[in-house]
Amino acid sequence: MTTTNRQFRLAARPQGLVKESDFRYEEAEKPVAADGEFVVKTEYISLDPSMRGQMENRADYVAPLEIGDVMRAGGVGHVIESRNPDYPEGTLVAGTFGMQDYAVVTADMPRVRRLPDGTDPVLALGVLGTTGMTAYFGLLDIGEPTPGDVVLVSGAAGATGSIAGQIAKLKGCRVVGIAGSDDKCNWLLDELGFDGAINYKTADIGAEIDRLCPTGIDIYFDNVGGEILDLALDRIRDNARVVLCGGISRYNATGPVPGPVNYFNLVFRRARMEGFIVLDYADKFEAAGREMSQWIADGALKQQATVKDGFKLLPSALIDLFTGANTGKMMVKTS
Amino acid sequence: MTTTNRQFRLAARPQGLVKESDFRYEEAEKPVAADGEFVVKTEYISLDPSMRGQMENRADYVAPLEIGDVMRAGGVGHVIESRNPDYPEGTLVAGTFGMQDYAVVTADMPRVRRLPDGTDPVLALGVLGTTGMTAYFGLLDIGEPTPGDVVLVSGAAGATGSIAGQIAKLKGCRVVGIAGSDDKCNWLLDELGFDGAINYKTADIGAEIDRLCPTGIDIYFDNVGGEILDLALDRIRDNARVVLCGGISRYNATGPVPGPVNYFNLVFRRARMEGFIVLDYADKFEAAGREMSQWIADGALKQQATVKDGFKLLPSALIDLFTGANTGKMMVKTS
Repeated sequence: MTTTNRQFRLAARPQGLVKESDFRYEEAEKPVAADGEFVVKTEYISLDPSMRGQMENRADYVAPLEIGDVMRAGGVGHVIESRNPDYPEGTLVAGTFGMQDYAVVTADMPRVRRLPDGTDPVLALGVLGTTGMTAYFGLLDIGEPTPGDVVLVSGAAGATGSIAGQIAKLKGCRVVGIAGSDDKCNWLLDELGFDGAINYKTADIGAEIDRLCPTGIDIYFDNVGGEILDLALDRIRDNARVVLCGGISRYNATGPVPGPVNYFNLVFRRARMEGFIVLDYADKFEAAGREMSQWIADGALKQQATVKDGFKLLPSALIDLFTGANTGKMMVKTS
Repeated sequence: MTTTNRQFRLAARPQGLVKESDFRYEEAEKPVAADGEFVVKTEYISLDPSMRGQMENRADYVAPLEIGDVMRAGGVGHVIESRNPDYPEGTLVAGTFGMQDYAVVTADMPRVRRLPDGTDPVLALGVLGTTGMTAYFGLLDIGEPTPGDVVLVSGAAGATGSIAGQIAKLKGCRVVGIAGSDDKCNWLLDELGFDGAINYKTADIGAEIDRLCPTGIDIYFDNVGGEILDLALDRIRDNARVVLCGGISRYNATGPVPGPVNYFNLVFRRARMEGFIVLDYADKFEAAGREMSQWIADGALKQQATVKDGFKLLPSALIDLFTGANTGKMMVKTS
C-alpha cells in the first residue's frame, strides 16, 4: 500500500462552469491516526451538484471551502488503521472523506456511518446514501404524494430525480420525467416505468408537459430551476407542491439568475413551494434505508450509476454533472 | 327612493395602472325580483386589489369580467324588495353586489350572508369581511405563528396587512411593518403596537429590515411581491414561512414581472412559500368572525377605513388602492 495521499484541493473559486483549473492536484503523506481517530482508504468518491456551491465563497447551509482546502466529497472505504475501538481495521464506512486517498476520521466527525460487510459501495453512495435520502424525504415529506397524483420530475435521469420518480411510482402516482437525451428518456420509460418522458433539449417542453399532464401537475420535483420551473409553475393544479430539491441550471451562472416569473400562480392555485435540507432528516435515514433496500431487493427500485475509474478523473466527473453527461449517480473509483 | 340604478361597467381592459376611462358609468332601471329572489340596495361598496385581475382577461380563480359587465365588488346593504322568505325586506346583507345601487340576488348566489341588525357596515366589509378573513387565515393557517416569531408584513397599512400584523401581535410575535409614508408608519407603531415600521419610499429597505429583524424573519406576510419579496427572501430564517397574500406591485404591470431572484434561499433555509385563496376557508368564517369580534370588543384589534362618500368616486377609489393613497380598508358609501 502506497504512502502517497493523492488529493484534489480547491485552487480557484469557479466562474461560470467549473473548470479543471479550479482544482489543484497534490500528493501528501498518508496521515496517521491520533488517539481516538482512524484512517480510511477511500475507494469510491461521490460527485454531487451541491459541491459547486461549496467551491464558491457563499453563505449556505454548509461552510464554504477555503482556497487550498481539500475538496469536500462523500466517499466509501475501509478503515486501514485505527486507534478507535468502535471502528476497527477492516470496517467498511461511508462519510465525507474528501477528494483524497486517505482521510483521518475523528470520532465526532458528523455523517460517518458503518456499513454492513458486503455492502455495495455504489448503492451506499447512491440510493442508500445522501442522494437517495434526498429523493426519499423530498418526495415523501415535502411532496406528500397520494395515489393518482401527477408528478413531474426534472433532472429525472440524474441520481436524485431517478429515485424520486420511482418512489412516486411506488406510491401510485403518474410520473413524467424531464431529461437531456433520448437515451435517458428511453431509460426512464423502459427501465424505470415512468409514464412519460420529455427530452428538454429537443422538445417544446411546455407543449409536452401539456400533452403528458393534461390535467396539470400535483407535485413538481425540481432539480433544475430556471425556465423549467416556470413552465411547471404555470401548470400546477390546486394545492400543488413544488419540491425545491436543486437548481442545477443556476449553479454555474456567473450573474444573478432570474427568479420564477410564474411564482404568483402559487396564489391562484393555493399551492406551496418548499425547500429542504436532507441532513435535517438524519435520524430517519436508517429506517428509510431499510425501506429502500427492500424495494431494491424486490426489483421495484433501480439505480443506475456512472462510475469512472481513476482518481485523476474526479474534476472531470464533477464537470460532467453540469453538462449532463451522466445518467444516474456519478462517482469515481479511486484505484 | 329613486328607480335609477347607477352602475359602473367595465369599458376597457386596463393597460398598466387602472384609469377612469376603463369604467363606463350607466344608469339602468332598478331591477325587479323574480320568485325566490330579492333586491338589495347597496350602501357601502368595497374596493380590493384583486378587482384589477378580474378586469383583465386572465384565467384566475374567479372568472374574468367581460367588457360591458357591471364591475364586480363586495358590498353591504338592506333588502328592499323580496320574494324570498329567508331574506325579508329590511334584512341587512353582505355579498358581491357589484358597483351598482341595486342588485338582484338569487337564492343560490354564493357569498351572500345575513348580518345582525346594527352591524357596522364598515367592519362588515373590512375586518369581518373577506379582507379580515384573508388576514386571519393567511397569517394563522399558512403562517403558523408561534410566540417569539419575527413577522414582517408588507402593505402593512393596508386593509389586510394591518389586520395580519395585529393578529401576529396577539399571538406573541415581534411584528415589523412596511408601508408607504411616515404617517402610515407612525400609525402602525403608535396605534397598532407594531414593534417596527419601515417607510419603503424613503428608507434603505434591506438595511432597515436588518436593523429591525437582526435575527432574520420567521414569517413574511407578502402583499406586494417585487423587490420587497426578494429582500425578505434573502433574510428568512430556518423553517420560515412566506405567506403569499397579494402582489400589488405586479397588478398594474404591463409586461412580465420578474420573479423572486432569491427564491432559492427557500432551499438553504428549508423554508416554504405558499399561496392561498380565502374562499377555501368559507366554512370557518363564522368562527373566525366571532373571535375577531371579541378582539375588537376588547380593543385588541383595530380597523382603519378610508370611506369615500359618493357613488361616482368608485373608480378613483379603486385607483387610489394602487397608488397607496389609502390607509386601511377602502370603501365607498354610495348615497
